[in-house]
Formats: sequence, structure tokens, C-alpha cells
Amino acid sequence: MPIYLRGLLFLSEQGKQSISSRNMANLLGVNSWQIRKDFSYFGGFGTRGVGYEVGKLIKQINKILKLDGVRKVALVGVGNLGLAILAYPGFRMYNFEIVAAFDTNPKKIGRKVSNITIEDASDIRTLKRRKIDLAIIAVPRDSAQETADALVEADTKGILNLAPCRITVPKKVKVITIDIAMDLARLPYYMPAS
Amino acid sequence: MPIYLRGLLFLSEQGKQSISSRNMANLLGVNSWQIRKDFSYFGGFGTRGVGYEVGKLIKQINKILKLDGVRKVALVGVGNLGLAILAYPGFRMYNFEIVAAFDTNPKKIGRKVSNITIEDASDIRTLKRRKIDLAIIAVPRDSAQETADALVEADTKGILNLAPCRITVPKKVKVITIDIAMDLARLPYYMPAS
Repeated sequence: MPIYLRGLLFLSEQGKQSISSRNMANLLGVNSWQIRKDFSYFGGFGTRGVGYEVGKLIKQINKILKLDGVRKVALVGVGNLGLAILAYPGFRMYNFEIVAAFDTNPKKIGRKVSNITIEDASDIRTLKRRKIDLAIIAVPRDSAQETADALVEADTKGILNLAPCRITVPKKVKVITIDIAMDLARLPYYMPAS
Repeated sequence: MPIYLRGLLFLSEQGKQSISSRNMANLLGVNSWQIRKDFSYFGGFGTRGVGYEVGKLIKQINKILKLDGVRKVALVGVGNLGLAILAYPGFRMYNFEIVAAFDTNPKKIGRKVSNITIEDASDIRTLKRRKIDLAIIAVPRDSAQETADALVEADTKGILNLAPCRITVPKKVKVITIDIAMDLARLPYYMPAS
């Protein structure tokens, strides 16, 4: 579903107001019957000769994915990766707003980056009070677990982990780990011998 | 398969030499019958009471994924994200070595970062001669497609795209796009209402 959403947001950006299941299929590399099936499941029905309304589908998918309404996000770790995340324009598209950033480095604490003042990592606990329940971990591997523990303590409900390691959290917390090296490792299999 | 590999590399790092399908199942959150089925497909057979040999399975999966032998990788874009990638320790685990880095910024060209001298992006074409056929794109969205075009021209066969946009390449080139915002967008669906 997030892949449909990304495709639809792309179309919307290009000024497209409607799309046929066949064109959507070409854009995403999926079968058009699959798209018709999925879209009807979302409650979207195309019009013959016109196709599906892009804006309407975006709204419906956003609602299913609970992305309707701005979601506040905290970032922990303002190294190179953290800085890249703060500058990343893609979050807005999905209604995310990074509103807090934490680091342990005294030289960084208090500095302002992308309009956010970096806070001391020991203040992660304030997230509960501030009702920020979504966090991105961009710290080195060795401090990933203690960061996760602090976030769980602060009632974080969803974590996007970018540290190259596993983190352990209670079942009620949902974690998605992105391991860039593992994604790179998927490529050679598909590459012809040189 | 990359997920099994990551799990096994993790175990190997911890000094584990063998693992039962049940413990592997717990580690990865997969059914143990699925693991036994998949591992036997890789040509790995466990020993009753001992389990599977971790080192042997790593070798077998590496071979299937064409990860046996060091793979040279080029990085294009040495901004914050590029710097984070150059410093990222995870690539080595999968036998990747970043051996070239490119940027268009004259202030960066010639500088040395993590033992790699940054080259002018117009020299991407030299990758063909240097037999580097795997690349990571870490440039801003607006220059992602022209970077991809230059890489295709240089006979790149696999691209890991970290720019938040779609890139178009000939069919023979395999692309994996990582969209951090889209991964974050998968979280709220699983989070309980607060």
C-alpha cells in the first residue's frame, strides 16, 4: 500500500488528476488486474474511460495507513545520517514533521539545524509529555539499544531504526529496521556476470 | 534470503557456530518449518541435536546471492548522506568495498574522506574501465536521473538509489530504491491510537 501511495503522490506532484489501472500498472510494474482488485478494496472505483481519481485515492490510502493528519517525529542521532534526514524533503509528502532532535555530543546540543534545536539525549523522556510517539534512530550501532530503551521508556510506539543492528523492544512497539548494506546485498544476484 | 544472511552474520559475530531451526525462527520471527524448508533448498542440512552450521550456511547463501568475493562499489554524491555511507561499517559484512566516490562540488573534489579521494562526477565514465559495476546514488532528487544516466553509460549493472525519487534505466540494469520516508509511512498503521 505504501508503494501505491508513493506512486499516487508522484502523479499528484506531476499535476495528474486521474489515472487508468493500466497506466498505474506500467508506472509501478504491477499487474493491472491486481491494481483494480486492490483499489476496489480501498473503496476506490474507477470510471470507464477516465480511470481513478488520484486525489481521492491518496486520501483513502492515507486514512487506511493512519497518515491523515500531521504526525510528529523525533530524531535521535545528529551525525551525518541524522543531518541528511533533517534535510530530507520526502517526509512532508507523507505528513510527517520532524519536531525534535537529540544527540549526546555536548558540542551539538543547543545548536540549531534545519530549524530544530538539538536537545540532550537524556531528555528523550520528555517525548511522552510532548506526545511524540514516533522516532527515527540514527545513532552508531553501539548506542542503538540504549536509545531504543530510552524511547520505549518515553512511550514511543513506532521506531524507524537506521542503525546497522537489531534492537529489542516490547511487542507493543513496532520497529522497522533499514539496513542499507543488506539492500545493496540484494543487487548482485540480479546482475549479469561481467 | 538476505534476511537469513543478516541473521547468520549476526550469530557468527556473536561467536555462535551452530543454531537450531527453532532458535533461528525466534531470532528472525519466521516459522521454524519455513526455515527448515528454505535451508534445505540452499543445500544446508541440520544435524539433530546440533542444528545448522552457521559458517557453512553463510558460505552457501553468499554463493547463491553472488556475494562470494569482494565487490567494488562506487558512491555518487558526498553530501551528509554520502558521508554517512562512507563511514557505515555494515558494507564489509557483505563483502562490499566502496572504492570510488564522486561529487560535482569543486570544493569537495580532490578531498579525501574515509581513505577515498573524491572525484569529479564527470569522471563517472571511468568506472567501466575500472570494472566497477555497482553504484550507490546519494545525490539530491534533481540530479538523480542524470547521475543514473551517467552510470548506465559507464556500464553499471546494479544501482542502489537513495534519492527520494524514481529513476528510469534500461531493463538490464537492476535498481533498488530506498525511500526512508516511505518506510516511516509504514509505521503508523501498526501503532495503537494514543
